[in-house]
Amino acid sequence: MTEPDDLLPEGLEDRLPDEARRITHAMRAALGVLDAHGYDRVLPPLIEFEKSLAGRMAKGPDEAQPRRMFRFVDPASLRTLALRSDITPQIGRIAATGMANAPRPLRLAYSGDTAVIRADQLDPARGRVQLGAELIGADTVEAAAEVVTLAIEAVAAAGVTGISVDFTLPDLVDTLADNAMPLPEEARKAVRRELDTKDAGGLKDAGGEAYLPLLFATGPFADAVEKLRAIDAGGALATRIAGLEQVAARIGDAARITLDPTERHGFEYQSWFGFTLYAENVRGAAGRGGTYCIAGSEEPATGFSLFLDTIASAVPDPERADTLYLPTGHDREAARRLRAIGWRTVAQIGEGEDPQALGCTHRLDGKDTVAL
Amino acid sequence: MTEPDDLLPEGLEDRLPDEARRITHAMRAALGVLDAHGYDRVLPPLIEFEKSLAGRMAKGPDEAQPRRMFRFVDPASLRTLALRSDITPQIGRIAATGMANAPRPLRLAYSGDTAVIRADQLDPARGRVQLGAELIGADTVEAAAEVVTLAIEAVAAAGVTGISVDFTLPDLVDTLADNAMPLPEEARKAVRRELDTKDAGGLKDAGGEAYLPLLFATGPFADAVEKLRAIDAGGALATRIAGLEQVAARIGDAARITLDPTERHGFEYQSWFGFTLYAENVRGAAGRGGTYCIAGSEEPATGFSLFLDTIASAVPDPERADTLYLPTGHDREAARRLRAIGWRTVAQIGEGEDPQALGCTHRLDGKDTVAL
Repeated sequence: MTEPDDLLPEGLEDRLPDEARRITHAMRAALGVLDAHGYDRVLPPLIEFEKSLAGRMAKGPDEAQPRRMFRFVDPASLRTLALRSDITPQIGRIAATGMANAPRPLRLAYSGDTAVIRADQLDPARGRVQLGAELIGADTVEAAAEVVTLAIEAVAAAGVTGISVDFTLPDLVDTLADNAMPLPEEARKAVRRELDTKDAGGLKDAGGEAYLPLLFATGPFADAVEKLRAIDAGGALATRIAGLEQVAARIGDAARITLDPTERHGFEYQSWFGFTLYAENVRGAAGRGGTYCIAGSEEPATGFSLFLDTIASAVPDPERADTLYLPTGHDREAARRLRAIGWRTVAQIGEGEDPQALGCTHRLDGKDTVAL
Repeated sequence: MTEPDDLLPEGLEDRLPDEARRITHAMRAALGVLDAHGYDRVLPPLIEFEKSLAGRMAKGPDEAQPRRMFRFVDPASLRTLALRSDITPQIGRIAATGMANAPRPLRLAYSGDTAVIRADQLDPARGRVQLGAELIGADTVEAAAEVVTLAIEAVAAAGVTGISVDFTLPDLVDTLADNAMPLPEEARKAVRRELDTKDAGGLKDAGGEAYLPLLFATGPFADAVEKLRAIDAGGALATRIAGLEQVAARIGDAARITLDPTERHGFEYQSWFGFTLYAENVRGAAGRGGTYCIAGSEEPATGFSLFLDTIASAVPDPERADTLYLPTGHDREAARRLRAIGWRTVAQIGEGEDPQALGCTHRLDGKDTVAL
């Protein structure tokens, strides 16, 4: 029955029942955590004007957000629309428009499908389920602490274990270059890039020799933060280091903490604080977040996104309810009562069915359940 | 803070917290019913090759599915992709490919976002949340009875009341024209159209005078089905009428039942049986379903779709948990325990916050909750 036309485009796939159940389960558990902490879910549309989606990304001074979105012309407005590749800018737009008058801090949650026109090198998927939370109106240490601990709790609720979080300082180079480790404006971009790729030779060539020790201020948090403090002779980083320590204290033993202060990839539009979540059996990052400024409204915000399908692939199968086969002519009221107490039922609709092949563990006999 | 660029394209909107909560609540309740009846959720992708989405619709002999989808070229395959406007054809594709070897009957459920490039006259929305179930491998009376009662139970669980279901017989004209009320092939299309628009004059002009009484076999089920039986002199409809009566008997008093045997709009690809769901305060239809044949695999199937955002707008607000304000320095363990028993919490993150404006009903004082 399979014909070539039935195949899906590269990087797009069906989630069949087992995988769909894991994703649904992880999504509800994570959304439940966000709701319990006062984050209200919003549902932005799949498509928007390209300009509103693109204009709210790419806050970095020199990084251009690659054109990752599927785009098409709207016959109604004759303007270019795009399919969302990231829900975060939509939340920023909602905060700046429909919820501009809601009291701050504003806590919003989201979960939904996204698509990118081109996969990145590390991940062939072009369709992803993104889930996240945004704390709008604050990018303080307290906001960072709430958001990181929330992200860890959400990932744990989704069912993964062995969680670790890697801190970074996205505006590190600018902060140092403005203070104790001066760099001409034109050299900053190259220094940031070489630090990000951890290329010591390239860093020297770019005129960033003074920044070399930063490459070694990485690893387990307590140790790396001491190295960072030693580099920070002028004290330009003192408040950032103190902030990281407060956030780390709040995490406690909920996750292993590491520091990689020069990591920039994926943090192009974050301000002083960024973090990446990892977990056992999750390939690549489980999520990412940090402090930033909403483009357009310029309101400070702190948030995170989880890659829900990646996470769900590392989660054990959720427990399945016992499934009861209901033969033709069964007692419908008995079946209804059993469903109400958690049974799943499969009703016979024809001759020659094999209840076990249909996933049934029991059959209804009169008012009784009998194991198959 | 609102600029023109922040506006959304026509027919697309944000669902802010109250509406998002109603939609989420209705979705979980309806999916819970489908799961309890053995329907496994699958998650097809947002976009596919246009050909696979379009090729599985429009099963009617003369109705062309309007080109309702957003389309764009895939740089990876250089083929045309489309954003789904309907999830049903995706479920048919899954049944025919990835789940071709799963035992039949196959019960699948889905829920997700869809978009259409042009709104229809009755509904300006271009983005919709569609939820549904497909029973694949059967289009029998028993299958129809299961699917209609399931649809009613799902809509009721979503929170609406005053449910009614309107039956139709999509292949009525072909059945009669092949038997007691012969019509030349070339006249059938016009007769179907005039019956659908209930235009008696047009029907005569189209050569369908014999079909006129069908226009009056509508209304409350018991009465309308008697009129239909009286028209059906040759007995060509006998099995269909018996089928409708069995389905109606299974519904019992779970919904008010009406019959409109010539209704074709929205049933272009259904076979012998179709139904539309209505409910109190729901503008337009709440859902639609019927028996059909999966294009490509030609497997019989019975299913339904609900228009979840339409339904959710008619549902009362779900109850909100009490919300507890957690002042700076609060007892985190006490807060955690209170969340575990159902409290929602909002932690203070700065000076000058107004707990009530933030939606809080209580505040945490030591280990105690104090009403605000």
